[in-house]
Formats: sequence, C-alpha cells, structure tokens
Amino acid sequence: MLIVQKYGGTSVGSLERIENVAKRVAKAREEGNDLVVVVSAMSGETNKLIDYAHHFSKTPSKREMDILLSSGERVTASLLAIALQEMGYDAIAMTGRQAGIKTDGTHTYARIESIDTSAIEERIKEGKIVIVAGFQGINEKGEVTTLGRGGSDLSAVALAGALHADACEIYSDVDGIYTTDPRIEPKAKKLDYISYDEMLELSSLGAKVLQNRSVELAKKMGVKIIAKSSFSDGPGTIIAEENEAMEAVLVSGIALDKNQARVSLRDVEDRPGIAAEIFNRLADEQINVDMIIQNASKEGKTNLGFTVPQSELEAAKKVIGSFEKDFGEADYDENVCKVSIVGVGMKSHSGIAAKAFSAMAENNINIEMISTSEIKISMIVDEKYGELAVRVLHETYELDK
Amino acid sequence: MLIVQKYGGTSVGSLERIENVAKRVAKAREEGNDLVVVVSAMSGETNKLIDYAHHFSKTPSKREMDILLSSGERVTASLLAIALQEMGYDAIAMTGRQAGIKTDGTHTYARIESIDTSAIEERIKEGKIVIVAGFQGINEKGEVTTLGRGGSDLSAVALAGALHADACEIYSDVDGIYTTDPRIEPKAKKLDYISYDEMLELSSLGAKVLQNRSVELAKKMGVKIIAKSSFSDGPGTIIAEENEAMEAVLVSGIALDKNQARVSLRDVEDRPGIAAEIFNRLADEQINVDMIIQNASKEGKTNLGFTVPQSELEAAKKVIGSFEKDFGEADYDENVCKVSIVGVGMKSHSGIAAKAFSAMAENNINIEMISTSEIKISMIVDEKYGELAVRVLHETYELDK
Repeated sequence: MLIVQKYGGTSVGSLERIENVAKRVAKAREEGNDLVVVVSAMSGETNKLIDYAHHFSKTPSKREMDILLSSGERVTASLLAIALQEMGYDAIAMTGRQAGIKTDGTHTYARIESIDTSAIEERIKEGKIVIVAGFQGINEKGEVTTLGRGGSDLSAVALAGALHADACEIYSDVDGIYTTDPRIEPKAKKLDYISYDEMLELSSLGAKVLQNRSVELAKKMGVKIIAKSSFSDGPGTIIAEENEAMEAVLVSGIALDKNQARVSLRDVEDRPGIAAEIFNRLADEQINVDMIIQNASKEGKTNLGFTVPQSELEAAKKVIGSFEKDFGEADYDENVCKVSIVGVGMKSHSGIAAKAFSAMAENNINIEMISTSEIKISMIVDEKYGELAVRVLHETYELDK
Repeated sequence: MLIVQKYGGTSVGSLERIENVAKRVAKAREEGNDLVVVVSAMSGETNKLIDYAHHFSKTPSKREMDILLSSGERVTASLLAIALQEMGYDAIAMTGRQAGIKTDGTHTYARIESIDTSAIEERIKEGKIVIVAGFQGINEKGEVTTLGRGGSDLSAVALAGALHADACEIYSDVDGIYTTDPRIEPKAKKLDYISYDEMLELSSLGAKVLQNRSVELAKKMGVKIIAKSSFSDGPGTIIAEENEAMEAVLVSGIALDKNQARVSLRDVEDRPGIAAEIFNRLADEQINVDMIIQNASKEGKTNLGFTVPQSELEAAKKVIGSFEKDFGEADYDENVCKVSIVGVGMKSHSGIAAKAFSAMAENNINIEMISTSEIKISMIVDEKYGELAVRVLHETYELDK
C-alpha cells in the first residue's frame, strides 16, 4: 500500500516527539508500505517566526513572510529524515519545491494548483521513504508560497490524491472525531467513520483535527483520510465518501458553536433585492454571516434573521442602521449559540427534526431560529442552554451507544 | 556605487540588532548606493540546528543537513527585508536559489561554481535593495547546498565579483584587522589596508573577520573587501591587491599560532622519495602538517623537521614510528608555537629577517625552526616565549607607530 502520513506541530513538537514519529513511520514501513510523510513545523515555531516579523511590521510583506514561514517545515522534514536514516531506513527530505507542489501566486494563502509527482515517484521506486516539508509550494514564478493555517494537511491530502495513495493518515494529538465535544458530554464516543459532508458540517468538532479546506480537497480528489493520534495506537476515524454503513446511522454528531450573535429584522419591505443589498453590505464590511432564515411574507412584509460572530455584531449593527427605512424593528441578541445535529442518515429518514424539537421542548429550551439542510439541523438557542442542548440531543439520538 | 554588504551572525543576533542593520543599510541607501545585502543566520541558530541533528545521529546525512541549515539564513533575510520595507525602502529577500548561486554537488561544503546574476540585476534596476540569504546555493540537480563555515562571506564575495560591485563590506563585531592580537599586545593598531596575500598569511589574526577561503576568492575575482564593525562607525580595514602604499610598509602584522607541535628527525637516509613517503603517510592519517624544513645533506644523511597541530602529535608519532629504520633519532616537542612576521614590503627590502633574529636573541628567545616565504618569516619557539616574541617583534618593526 502507498500511504501518505501527516504529522502536525504537536506531534513533532520536540526532538523526542520527532523520534517517536520516526518509530511510527518505521513501523508502517515494516508492515510493507510505501510511505510519503508530510510534516508541520515544530509546535510554536511558526508563531515565533510570526512574532519576529511583527516586531518589525504590523503588515509584513506576504512574499517575505512565505520565505520566513516555510523554514519551519524544512527543519522538521530534514530532522525526521535524519532520524529515520539513523534507524537504518532509506529516507529523503524534500522541500515543497522538490516535492513538485505548484500553487497559484497568492502569498501566505496559496492554493495548490497541481503536483508534479515524478520526483517523489522516482524516490519511492528507489525504495525510499519520502519526507515532505508541508505547508509550502512554489508559484509559477518559482517563488516560495505557503498555504495558510492547516496548510500541511492540504499538502498531505493533495499529495495523497495526486499519488493515488491508498490512504492519507492525519496525525494530531486527538485520536479521532467524536460524536460531540467530550468536554461537554463525557459520554461522547469516537466515530469509526464519518462522511466528508458530515465532517464539513461538524467542522467545530474536527477543528483540532482537520480544517474544512482539507476535507473539501479530500472530497474532491476522493482521498480517504484517517484521523489518528500520534500518541496512542487507536484506529482513528475514517473520513470518506458516504457509504451504506454511514447511511444506516441517523445522526453522527452534535456540534456546538458558542460564538454566535443573532440579528432579527421584523417587517422588512418585501421588495426584490433588499436581502441581497443587506448581505452585500455586510460582506463589504468583512462580516461573516452564518445562518440566514427568512420567513414567508405577510402583507408585503417579511421577517429576516441571521447570525454573525459575536465579535462582529457591533459592525453588523452599524450596517443594519443604514437600512432603517427598510424594516420595522431590529432585535439583537449576542448571547445565543448554535446547536447542530449532523448525519447523512437524515437524507433517507424522516422524523429526525421532530425528535429534536420534542427533546428541546421537554427540557424547556426555547429554539429561537431553525435552519435545516439535507444532512444537518441547526438551532439557535440561548447561550446558557447550549451545553444542556448538546447533552439532551446526544442522549436523544443514543450517540453514546 | 554598487555595494555588497554582508552581516555576520553576531550582527544579526537579535531582533534589535537586525533593526540596527536595517538602519545601516538604509543609511548606505540614502548615500545613493545600489545595495545587495548578504546575511548569516542569527548567532546561535546554526549551532542549535546542528545540535538538533546530532540528537538523532552523530553523522547526519549531508544532503538533509543542507536543507536543515539553510533555513537559518532564510529567516534573517526575510526579517531584514520586512524591517526595511517598514522603514519605507523597497527591499526584497532572495534565497540562495533565487539569487542564482550555483554550486558543485558537495553537500555541507559546496564550492560556488557560477552565479546567474540576472534576477538580482533586474531587481536592482527596479530600484530594490536585494537581501540575499547567505551560506547557500543549489547544485546542478537543483538541490540545496551550503558552503561550510564562513559560507556567507563566500556568498558575499562571489556576488560582489559576479556583479562587479565597487566594494564588498564584511560586517562583524570587530572593526578591522589589527597588527597583532590586541589581547597579547595592547598597542596593536588597526590596519587601514592589507593585501590579500598578507591577509592569507595572517589568517589567525583575521579568523574572526574573514576566513581564508573568502580571501582567496576575493583575490581571484579582484573584489575589494572592507572589514568593518556593525556596532561602530569606523572606516574598517581594506583588503585588496597590494599597491605602492602597502609595499612601503615593511611589516603589516605579527601572528601567533599556539597550537603547534614540533617533530625533528635526525640523520634521515637521504634517498629520493623518503620525505614524500613520510608526508603521504601523514596525509593518509589526516594529519595536517604546517611548516616543513629540511637541512642540507651531510654525509648522505639529512635532518627533517616539521610541525603539526598539538592534538595530532600522538598520531604523527605512530606514523613516524613505522619509519624508524629510515632515520637516526626522533625528537618531539609539543610545547612550541609559531610566530610569524608578515608584510609585502619584504619582497623589496632586505634585512628584515636579520632584524627579527637579533631582536629574539637580545631577549634570549631561542629559535627552534625558521621558515621564510616572499612575504612571511615564521619562527618556531618555546611556547612560553610566544607572547613575549610577539610583543618584541611588534616593537621592533614599530607597528604601534
């Protein structure tokens, strides 16, 4: 099997941990696999370099930031290769450039455009374990680019896709994706499988494991991801295309997003384009709108509700203020949160939403807004009931079983 | 003027010092110069990375070491560029690859083979200050190579030569080359000028400023070096082709090498090739022979003397032991040192050596071995007289005047 492994900053956060990673790589090698190993910078290194740059400038040039930041992964890659060589394995370190990773020209947040895998494939044929510095590539001018936060995951997924690897193992300090945050519900269970779409909807649960950009890329390229811990030996969670086993499960997980503020506009003039105008103005102000709901019109008026991050509520109020002639009354609540139920099984099963609403009612949790998609039901509730709602729903769908 | 500046590890050893360097670069810019600035890694960084590698292996792979070690200079180059940009100057950081530095394939101790200056020249034409990560290049396979200790000096000199720069300013924490080590003779004076050849012969005096490899390259390419301190504003020492002013000076400096042991072989069989055999065997054992003298033969026998580093004397004794049939008696002295008088003026002046021998005799310092070249007189004396000899000679040639 050809396996791409990726070890995050915490997993390579010290020389001892790099040694531990070398042992894991060696074990996978002894099991007969071809291996491409993508590494992040040692934890803290990237932030240290950012702090250095900010000593000189609040807005350092992105081109220079890329030369600066790409150095951290190069250090880890060469150290891991040296560690493996010392253990008797034929390993080779490659920079993003040497690994053939071509990106667009956007410094500090580049997109991978293509990968020329010939150099890596040649090394694999020679029997080598290939260690790749993650997070980096080169643009068409041959200049170093970096891929933004979580960029090493992107490197790994893109390499796995381009090399048609059998799996892409993403190692971090957590052992997989859970049905909900174990700090809120200690009965939360690790999932064996989750679909790409569920993972995307549950991003807050998986944030420490894998960012949405990587999941989207994996979905697009059909890369099977296995999220594992580098500190234990569990099987992890497989993130893949949904299959029958996944569909048989009604609900995969419950997510809680506490960073939400609600905006409700009553009696909005129901003329075409008014919603578009409001949301365009919010976008212009860099305000990230999350949930949007609009009730059916009544006497030429409509109610419009949406949520924004709490830190952006004040800015949103200003924008809304400039539309005051277009609606009757605005109501703001910055103490709300979003509880989401996610599961591909919802597609083929009815009654799941009703069950959630009943459970909330039984526990006297008032639902302020509801939004549903094919595989997700999201509810806005008072912030103080957020964690209770998670526990209630976790039990309702028997996720601890 | 086009000036290449190079700042060593101590000069960029902290964020504050990088800021100080940025101010120096800006000043040179305001004086109307085009600038290419070569930087080392922040002091301590390279050693830290070497320690990291040695945690995993006593003999880490050189290819991987180059990826590892080249990262330090990239950090400094990008930080200095960011600092200059923030001050309003148009600066750009370039890696060794981007600067067009092509080397041979020898990892960790590569030789610069050629420099494609087109990218740098284009940036200069655009009005940019070009900051180059020193110590590194790429080989013909496109892999990162490093140039060994003092490699950033080599980068700077080679760039100055290839760009036909008007001068190559090498900044460190000392303000130039002195007539002798000021710790031995407090009256030592900073030299305004010194020739390449004198500098090569006085390498122990200039070791903290510039290594011989860089001086040789500067001589070969005709690059005028100015050794300066980045912590003060003195004019430094100019290292260039000898000229009339230099030749008018009899002696430029006095050097002391304490790390010497003497080997004397008496009554060596005077058959052809015997000396070659002995020195080949010493070379095979990686023993560095420094001074060699052979007296004229007498009755078919000759006396052969040479010096080696003190730490290699035991190994040398073993080699000599295997030749015991070929000579009468061996005499070793590990407590000797070498005092050297250097000056291009010797070429055209006689009596300089005699003056030295008289001065030594007046002070009862016995000379065990003498070796002379066109611009240097070296004497081996008892180690305990080494510093006295330096002071005596410094005064004899009036170097404090």
